[in-house]
Amino acid sequence: MIAIDWGLTSFRAWRLAEDGAVLDRTTGPFGIRSVADRDFAAVLDRAVGTWRPATVLMCGMIGSRQGWVEAPYVAAPAGLAAIAAALAPVPGMDSAWIVPGVSQDPPDVMRGEETQILGVAAPLGAGRHVLCLPGTHSKWAVLEEGRVAGFRTAMTGEVFGLMRTQSMLAPLVPDDAAEDPGAFDAGVDRARDEGGLLHHLFGLRAAVLLGRLVPAALPSMLSGLLIGHEIAELSAEAQTVHLVGSAALTERYGRALSRFGIAATTHGEEMAARGLFVIAREAGIA
Amino acid sequence: MIAIDWGLTSFRAWRLAEDGAVLDRTTGPFGIRSVADRDFAAVLDRAVGTWRPATVLMCGMIGSRQGWVEAPYVAAPAGLAAIAAALAPVPGMDSAWIVPGVSQDPPDVMRGEETQILGVAAPLGAGRHVLCLPGTHSKWAVLEEGRVAGFRTAMTGEVFGLMRTQSMLAPLVPDDAAEDPGAFDAGVDRARDEGGLLHHLFGLRAAVLLGRLVPAALPSMLSGLLIGHEIAELSAEAQTVHLVGSAALTERYGRALSRFGIAATTHGEEMAARGLFVIAREAGIA
Repeated sequence: MIAIDWGLTSFRAWRLAEDGAVLDRTTGPFGIRSVADRDFAAVLDRAVGTWRPATVLMCGMIGSRQGWVEAPYVAAPAGLAAIAAALAPVPGMDSAWIVPGVSQDPPDVMRGEETQILGVAAPLGAGRHVLCLPGTHSKWAVLEEGRVAGFRTAMTGEVFGLMRTQSMLAPLVPDDAAEDPGAFDAGVDRARDEGGLLHHLFGLRAAVLLGRLVPAALPSMLSGLLIGHEIAELSAEAQTVHLVGSAALTERYGRALSRFGIAATTHGEEMAARGLFVIAREAGIA
Repeated sequence: MIAIDWGLTSFRAWRLAEDGAVLDRTTGPFGIRSVADRDFAAVLDRAVGTWRPATVLMCGMIGSRQGWVEAPYVAAPAGLAAIAAALAPVPGMDSAWIVPGVSQDPPDVMRGEETQILGVAAPLGAGRHVLCLPGTHSKWAVLEEGRVAGFRTAMTGEVFGLMRTQSMLAPLVPDDAAEDPGAFDAGVDRARDEGGLLHHLFGLRAAVLLGRLVPAALPSMLSGLLIGHEIAELSAEAQTVHLVGSAALTERYGRALSRFGIAATTHGEEMAARGLFVIAREAGIA
């Protein structure tokens, strides 16, 4: 089968053996935003045409309103069975489906992450597990007996970008600012102080004005502050958090979690391929 | 005397009688950012030259590094006596001074608001009082026995602007979005739910996607959410909060405070003139 994680800005595909082993992989800048004519079939053919004929299962924003075909959200709590039962067939394509996103109340949504979560869930087994998929919009999910019991999204990466480049903090930072682990740690710790995030953000400016923070260290402290607030609010009393994402991000989150006394286990980005495989098998299409 | 609140983008001046009564007032777009040649003396002469000769006392960003002369911060806790003792004389001007800002630890700063606070403090008398000066950078101060015991700044207005115009929420909002008091209230209430601000911000997008929030109501709910978080974090267990600011902002904050069961008393924007008068009298220059 062919497994594809197709997002707004990225396209990652894997050719999988019958037992789920990865035979080939390809990536490209074919995110759905780049497909101006919405001719997704042509992009698919160009990217993985040589792997066909084969069953195709896709996840991510390709299943959103702006994507190929909308795969309506499945409401949490939702597990492998519910998600595999709601695959959206792609009109005009043989043996091609899209995985639905998951929604919940109070309002929250994910699209693509549910597949990575199911990829991690398979080996974790029963019991309660807390997962974090850090990013522009970080996802925190609680798995219970293999199902996504609930999840929450934090706008951490996006707020970091806006603060770093558009806010009154931006002009304080010199061009040569480098990573500063000590300032990152100080930001994580500050997140637990009284006053809240809106206050702590202003405090970065005050710290520079009063000579307590070297301007070049501001981005690292800002990063620690935001990730610290995210962990304080969303770690759901976990003793261990399963991190899924790039090495750079999971390393950063693991460091922050350790300051909360929380252990971290890291799972690679290929969890999407694993998840697509278990969903396809559950749906009886692979 | 002449009392001037001179900020980055605004200039407000009052001619005061010996008993502090306002005889005349003038405002203009002469904020220090607009004074490209830094010839502040010329601006002053143009704006209030006809009121001179008279003692001039100024507060606000005119006393910052980018201003006329830097008036170093006084550390909180600080009251009328400490602030009046630290006025910075303006070189080359007869009888002209600038009020210092106030700083504290963990790092926070104010410049201009300390003067409004002292203007409110005079009639409030002894005891503990909580003040809020809402704005781009809202200030919350605790007065104890007439002194600023401590204060905290929240970046509420700035975060609202960035989210409203630069974030992934911006394209969701139609051009004809109008004030929606019900959505504002819902935002205030949501601020008390679990998950924290970074999560609640993303929730606005999810609510629109899932059809739970009319896109035109998003800015009002965003405003309520941010002000709600500010109040939840900074209201310092007050039963009554003294609001100082424009009618539009104090009305909005009063509405939000009422949903927390907190009463609000509103003081007008002329508190700066009152504060400059009591400082001048304490310093023996008026």
